Amino acid sequence: MKVGFIGLGAMGSAMASNLIKAGHTVTVWNRSPQAAESLVSLGAKLARTPDRAAQGDVLFSMLANDRAVREVILDSGLLDAMDRGAVHVNHATVSVALAKELTAAHAERGLDYLSAPVFGRPDVAAAGKLNIVVGGKAAVLERVRPLLEAMGGGIWPMGDEPERANVVKIAGNFMIGAAIESMAEAVALTRAHGVEAADFLGLMTGTLFATPVYKGYGQLIAEQRYKPAGFALPLGYKDINLALAAGDAARVPLPFASVLRDSLLETLAAGDEDVDWAALAMVAARRAGLDR
Amino acid sequence: MKVGFIGLGAMGSAMASNLIKAGHTVTVWNRSPQAAESLVSLGAKLARTPDRAAQGDVLFSMLANDRAVREVILDSGLLDAMDRGAVHVNHATVSVALAKELTAAHAERGLDYLSAPVFGRPDVAAAGKLNIVVGGKAAVLERVRPLLEAMGGGIWPMGDEPERANVVKIAGNFMIGAAIESMAEAVALTRAHGVEAADFLGLMTGTLFATPVYKGYGQLIAEQRYKPAGFALPLGYKDINLALAAGDAARVPLPFASVLRDSLLETLAAGDEDVDWAALAMVAARRAGLDR
Amino acid sequence: MKVGFIGLGAMGSAMASNLIKAGHTVTVWNRSPQAAESLVSLGAKLARTPDRAAQGDVLFSMLANDRAVREVILDSGLLDAMDRGAVHVNHATVSVALAKELTAAHAERGLDYLSAPVFGRPDVAAAGKLNIVVGGKAAVLERVRPLLEAMGGGIWPMGDEPERANVVKIAGNFMIGAAIESMAEAVALTRAHGVEAADFLGLMTGTLFATPVYKGYGQLIAEQRYKPAGFALPLGYKDINLALAAGDAARVPLPFASVLRDSLLETLAAGDEDVDWAALAMVAARRAGLDR
Amino acid sequence: MKVGFIGLGAMGSAMASNLIKAGHTVTVWNRSPQAAESLVSLGAKLARTPDRAAQGDVLFSMLANDRAVREVILDSGLLDAMDRGAVHVNHATVSVALAKELTAAHAERGLDYLSAPVFGRPDVAAAGKLNIVVGGKAAVLERVRPLLEAMGGGIWPMGDEPERANVVKIAGNFMIGAAIESMAEAVALTRAHGVEAADFLGLMTGTLFATPVYKGYGQLIAEQRYKPAGFALPLGYKDINLALAAGDAARVPLPFASVLRDSLLETLAAGDEDVDWAALAMVAARRAGLDR
Repeated sequence: MKVGFIGLGAMGSAMASNLIKAGHTVTVWNRSPQAAESLVSLGAKLARTPDRAAQGDVLFSMLANDRAVREVILDSGLLDAMDRGAVHVNHATVSVALAKELTAAHAERGLDYLSAPVFGRPDVAAAGKLNIVVGGKAAVLERVRPLLEAMGGGIWPMGDEPERANVVKIAGNFMIGAAIESMAEAVALTRAHGVEAADFLGLMTGTLFATPVYKGYGQLIAEQRYKPAGFALPLGYKDINLALAAGDAARVPLPFASVLRDSLLETLAAGDEDVDWAALAMVAARRAGLDR
Repeated sequence: MKVGFIGLGAMGSAMASNLIKAGHTVTVWNRSPQAAESLVSLGAKLARTPDRAAQGDVLFSMLANDRAVREVILDSGLLDAMDRGAVHVNHATVSVALAKELTAAHAERGLDYLSAPVFGRPDVAAAGKLNIVVGGKAAVLERVRPLLEAMGGGIWPMGDEPERANVVKIAGNFMIGAAIESMAEAVALTRAHGVEAADFLGLMTGTLFATPVYKGYGQLIAEQRYKPAGFALPLGYKDINLALAAGDAARVPLPFASVLRDSLLETLAAGDEDVDWAALAMVAARRAGLDR
Repeated sequence: MKVGFIGLGAMGSAMASNLIKAGHTVTVWNRSPQAAESLVSLGAKLARTPDRAAQGDVLFSMLANDRAVREVILDSGLLDAMDRGAVHVNHATVSVALAKELTAAHAERGLDYLSAPVFGRPDVAAAGKLNIVVGGKAAVLERVRPLLEAMGGGIWPMGDEPERANVVKIAGNFMIGAAIESMAEAVALTRAHGVEAADFLGLMTGTLFATPVYKGYGQLIAEQRYKPAGFALPLGYKDINLALAAGDAARVPLPFASVLRDSLLETLAAGDEDVDWAALAMVAARRAGLDR
Repeated sequence: MKVGFIGLGAMGSAMASNLIKAGHTVTVWNRSPQAAESLVSLGAKLARTPDRAAQGDVLFSMLANDRAVREVILDSGLLDAMDRGAVHVNHATVSVALAKELTAAHAERGLDYLSAPVFGRPDVAAAGKLNIVVGGKAAVLERVRPLLEAMGGGIWPMGDEPERANVVKIAGNFMIGAAIESMAEAVALTRAHGVEAADFLGLMTGTLFATPVYKGYGQLIAEQRYKPAGFALPLGYKDINLALAAGDAARVPLPFASVLRDSLLETLAAGDEDVDWAALAMVAARRAGLDR
């Protein structure tokens, strides 16, 4: 199939390269064109403008946030350049509100639209093992399923409404944040009673909580290694605010998310913008009078 | 070795039976003696009073809570009946404050003392696969290690101070409670946006959070199956209060634990005493106007 | 002076009438013109469009929220219709972000701008006793001071930056919300122990907390009289969100505001849109298993 | 009437002196007898032991906390020294649980018992203007009313159950704590936007919140004057824990009290034991990155 791919950050590049390796003709675009070079060397065509990348059967996009999606997809006229019946698969983690707006904008133009946010870091994307959450019509999903399977190890349909995939992604990121905060508080508590963080976390992430989420963040916490950021704290703050906004829209109180918001904000207020969101453990320790 | 075992609930019975199977001479005692019958049929001796069970080289106890430990161990005169140099291994989940009091009481009488709370449910105990957290002198631990290994798949020493094992157990249970609450809120959020709980939790516990804790509680939440309780909510409430008390003692604010306390209390206020603590999801749903 | 007044709800009407009574020539505009009738009978001129009301020396506006201000003031071209050097006094409770945007929009056009949100209900406005918080240049304030004094019993300057007045108003409303929640929880606690709400609140609002805020809301709580709303709960929810947004902008964690947000959201989720925000006491009671 | 008074701190001394001035024969006792000297010079008799002070018609006590009451009243045998039909009026701020225990202990011995905690600082006590909250039988209250009126400007009966007065006192102190925290957060928010604390608090405590509680604590916050403590933070922490314990006993979630607990604990963890509980504003400012 003839496809386009917009947004070539660490995630987008890895995903697009798997489409190329699967034999598809991929036209790519990125704001800074250097990011496209390695894909071009794999066989991708470079588009000079985003709408050129949107002229195939399927357009994939992996942009950073609401603002970027609004700018590149909605405000640019790109959708008007797409052929009726083409599909746009949006992998970005965006707000539920924007997801609804995008759904309407595509429908007005006779375009098919899937929300398809992903779970997994760049190495997982490179291995083609992402978990891809999909919101949108089942028939549309079936048309692009082979393409998604080139990028993902699991395809998780959530029903006809595209925004459902977004709320699932948002809720999943909230659960990761909550897992970090629970380790942060538990480590502050046990350290204050004389237990080494590595001893406590070694036990917990080696037994009851033996998953990559807990192991990965647990190790950062045990080593107090918050830089360089794997997932920068301001992004975590953005995601928790997306959860609170989704809760606002559907009238869902989220007390854990409120605590997370306040703790992340406290870190930002302290000037720590470039740390990993594992640094929630730094806040918890400081509140307990540790590490002063 | 000649050992005693006090407290033959589901956990204690399973643990004692593994000591017997490992070839040790075990004298058992329980408040209601019927609980001892199956162990006697395996070869255990039945003590008529707890202090009779305490006259071997090592005494194990697995009692329900602070009150039971205080009554049976501290206020009964039992410690005075033990031989100097004998070891008491206390498997109960008790407060840090009581752990310190027990440490002092044993030291005064020349007795060795280990705090050894466990992670694992009765089926894990029966399989001899418990994770046993140990606080106390390394030399004492070495003396009883073969006995612990008959009951546990992992022995996790936390240093010389017995209460450290207790704070680790308390912090671990807090992390389980936090995992439940994070699923409870995430499910309320996604359900309010039209996603089935089973779809969302199937994804999360099948990928990022693929551990027994998340899978087990996730299934209860997806099925809204809160009775009969695997771990009764009032016990969870007790454990969160132990965490807050340990935080009070060492000056550690625990905002997630405060949220858990309020949510569990709300369930108790609604009269739901006999539900599993997975019922935190019931509170989260009710607050969001779901399931009314 | 020749002045205009836009926005003639209960508050705006009362304020404009005091300007007329003080002898000023007032041109008024309101979306639904009936609201202007009583003012016209007092001597006001009725403008057919908002920009006609904006052609005097000073324009006052008292609009409902960010959206109304954006629509009527910013997006309508109204500012372009004002004479250079004219003053716009904005009494609305709006976000800090919008206040900054308004400041810039006025400056670009050579207009003077004051943020002047007020404390006081319609009866206080009618009596000319409002407390008016003012942000903006001191010289501009002095020019309009006699006009403000016709409407207010207290003028409270907060410095040159207009948005400071807005954050003060927002913080003040947050304090009112916190006062209500503190009564709500205290009443749930004392009621659960057998004390009548009226007895407890009679004591507190008759002694330590003898101010109109506590007395007024305390009476609504004691009588569980939440309809009709004096200050509708969705407005309170809006104001707490303004506080959280102002906290976000300046990196200020506000844990009490987070609790208020969750509790107000819980009321909205229960379908109670038309109650006074004193109904926070209804949530607190329900959580405690009272009034079921 | 022949009365006794036990506990002669700043509050107790002032209260006892008013009984003497009203013409009653007062026998006093205090752990450190110097505190009694000025009362003796006013005409009081000095008892060498607390039970000597308990041999009149009415015994008043004003002790510091649960521990002191337990020691001096319950564990000392003092109640056995009182005449059947005598009245004990307990002014201490104690837990609901201890209040119930005291009620039972007096009933068993045929003694009448009133819980009578007070609102007011030492200067108010000296002026005989305390607000006295009374729990206990109406007939007993009538017998001692003239004595209470010598000490208080307001007598607030809360019904037959003595502990009701205690929960009222506890809930009242919680409301004071909440008022402080609400100022703390509001000041952090407005300061972060450039408003001086004195300007904001001058407005709020001069208008909507013009009561001694807000004015007094507001001034400490505006001046960042947390030492010497008028009401030491650890006492506030104790009182909030009494509120949470009363909530636990009657199944009442108290989210504001949970926030207060965590914030007070954070201050204690920072080593600030000897500050006024107005120092909640210090925590709020620190979290916002102010005053570092």
